[in-house]
Amino acid sequence: MAEQIPDKVLNVPTPCFLVDLDKLTRNAKVMQSRCDKLGVQLRPHTKTHKTVEAADILSAGRRRCVTVSTLAEAELYAESGYDDILYAFPITTNKIARCRKLNDKLGAFHVMLDSKAGYQALESSGTKKLWSVYLEIDVMYNRTGVSWKSDDVVELATLISGSDVMTFRGLYCHNGDTYHNKGGEEIRTSGKESTAVLMEVKQSGYMFPKRKESENAIRTITCFCIMAFLAVLFVWGSTPSCSHPDDSMSSLEEFSPGNYVFYDLMQKDIGSCKMEDIAGRVATRIIGHKIDLNILIIDCGFLALSKDGMENNLPNGPWIIQDNPNLRLVGMSQELGKVTAIEGEINFASHPIGSMMFIYPYHSCATAAMHSVYFVHSGDSITSVWRPTRGW
Amino acid sequence: MAEQIPDKVLNVPTPCFLVDLDKLTRNAKVMQSRCDKLGVQLRPHTKTHKTVEAADILSAGRRRCVTVSTLAEAELYAESGYDDILYAFPITTNKIARCRKLNDKLGAFHVMLDSKAGYQALESSGTKKLWSVYLEIDVMYNRTGVSWKSDDVVELATLISGSDVMTFRGLYCHNGDTYHNKGGEEIRTSGKESTAVLMEVKQSGYMFPKRKESENAIRTITCFCIMAFLAVLFVWGSTPSCSHPDDSMSSLEEFSPGNYVFYDLMQKDIGSCKMEDIAGRVATRIIGHKIDLNILIIDCGFLALSKDGMENNLPNGPWIIQDNPNLRLVGMSQELGKVTAIEGEINFASHPIGSMMFIYPYHSCATAAMHSVYFVHSGDSITSVWRPTRGW
Repeated sequence: MAEQIPDKVLNVPTPCFLVDLDKLTRNAKVMQSRCDKLGVQLRPHTKTHKTVEAADILSAGRRRCVTVSTLAEAELYAESGYDDILYAFPITTNKIARCRKLNDKLGAFHVMLDSKAGYQALESSGTKKLWSVYLEIDVMYNRTGVSWKSDDVVELATLISGSDVMTFRGLYCHNGDTYHNKGGEEIRTSGKESTAVLMEVKQSGYMFPKRKESENAIRTITCFCIMAFLAVLFVWGSTPSCSHPDDSMSSLEEFSPGNYVFYDLMQKDIGSCKMEDIAGRVATRIIGHKIDLNILIIDCGFLALSKDGMENNLPNGPWIIQDNPNLRLVGMSQELGKVTAIEGEINFASHPIGSMMFIYPYHSCATAAMHSVYFVHSGDSITSVWRPTRGW
Repeated sequence: MAEQIPDKVLNVPTPCFLVDLDKLTRNAKVMQSRCDKLGVQLRPHTKTHKTVEAADILSAGRRRCVTVSTLAEAELYAESGYDDILYAFPITTNKIARCRKLNDKLGAFHVMLDSKAGYQALESSGTKKLWSVYLEIDVMYNRTGVSWKSDDVVELATLISGSDVMTFRGLYCHNGDTYHNKGGEEIRTSGKESTAVLMEVKQSGYMFPKRKESENAIRTITCFCIMAFLAVLFVWGSTPSCSHPDDSMSSLEEFSPGNYVFYDLMQKDIGSCKMEDIAGRVATRIIGHKIDLNILIIDCGFLALSKDGMENNLPNGPWIIQDNPNLRLVGMSQELGKVTAIEGEINFASHPIGSMMFIYPYHSCATAAMHSVYFVHSGDSITSVWRPTRGW
């Protein structure tokens, strides 16, 4: 990567990841305003961008209240003056040492668990400071989280509430089921159904046994209060449902979407955003003409774009090449891509070697992750470069 | 990533990329010995690992004679005392500034071109030092390179040989066609056919016009010698054909395979290596039991493994989980994977939360690229960590 920051988009080194600052800022404001209207707190998830700069925009400069997917992110934000950080990944023993440091350092660091093993990891952590704990609930997504139908919900909630080293902060739900939806109506229906299920889980709090009454009256009361008087916080992930929330979702306390920072073609296909909201692109240059094969060679391979989306076998591939609806990316090796025409012959004279193309990612979380630097622009001008954290 | 280097494989942070030093060293020795027998120079391609440490092993400590896929790699090796570096990527104007610095710094820095635009980029570079130039030939792979059948071969070779700022170093061929082969016999046949084609191209050198005789007699003689007396170097990429070379490939001057440093399941399927040669794996831990769904949740998502291979829609997925032939990885989100059984029910007691699994990558170039650190081990002990370069 060149040391000097280029002045214009047309001068960036290729391949590179471009961030449209104006679109990102608009995406941030729209989501904030949506949350304000519903009366829910916005807790932006940082997993897609992993930068301080984007988090500053998404959190409106507050540097409070974010969700992270890795401890590397948590540590970046903790070092950058952020607080109230939720590590939304099921805790296990091997993560405890770094979590303890974060818990000791921050005013509010929240961890998440979905198993007795996770509970035991915290219980035996030897912490001097209470852990703030979310219980993850799985509502129809079948990934992490305790199934909302399972007796384990009550059992784990009871264990957390009864622990000497934990406070029960709330329930966390990733409404990933909406990734199978198409359009606002379907997304809202899915959000409504999942919210209804969560409310049912909340009601089950009434059934929590009072425990340890003789040992620790205050704690028992706390437990009872949290579960029975609905003071449990609900954190709710997934960009589709936060982009098209059902009114009933105002009964949740926090939204924690991530992908909306950049959006992408997958979100556009789902209906979470429009084409003009997509704030991340890969810039590439044409480096070869294979006229006999009707192919343009570009300097964008899978190390710049990722193969995410190819598994869906979409007829014209998962990507869109800006301003070139008749062109499509048909193959990638590590550093090279092949572009052909959907119909007819490529006008090679319109695409000289050295000229640029801009590719919209199918999945911006996957594409951004391939880059150690983002080139940020407003209109045609590069305004800055951002360096995301990587690893775990 | 934890700051302290763990002592044992079982203590590494997860997910992470593990490099088996003994297997890598054996792969290096086998390839070197194969090249020695054939009488060809080994020029290891660094694109798969991108580390100084692995390049030191592959170059037997000589720190000479490597091929790179990015300028970031070239700069890393140049700063680390390497010389005789081939940047095997079609040159375009936007790469000239950094190439000039490398050319000025190194004793031997080679660039590659496959178009008149590339030739013109070098011609107008304003260099004071001659460029050492390879012409890339496309032999039945249809990616970069001038088609061996095209008149452009002779035209470009003539231009390069006649330039005041270039020396014609040789021809470069990536025999990528072997990636469609299965087994040593097919790979050897493909290598034989491509070599025969290259020899035909070489013969075409006889047809090169003598040019600029009055202007520059020495240059013309050089041009004539190179093309007519077969002193042109052939560099030959692709791990399959370098792993199963046909005897006729002894007529080539250099082999430049890359993937053999780690190999992977794709190479095993092609027949380039055996399972026991695969030197790269992803270590992951089990973080959840979904007993009702017969699923184990692991802390390895697409950011640790990449989705490379999923596009092939193999019935049991592209990956193998070590020592668990009945388990397969059926889905990945950013930081999570889902593992189920091919037949019957998972024995969850054998896979407690916190226990490790090791996943063989389908494509090690893609998987290694997801990691900013490799944990290197000999047997069960971690010997060091390597930090690859990233970006372009």
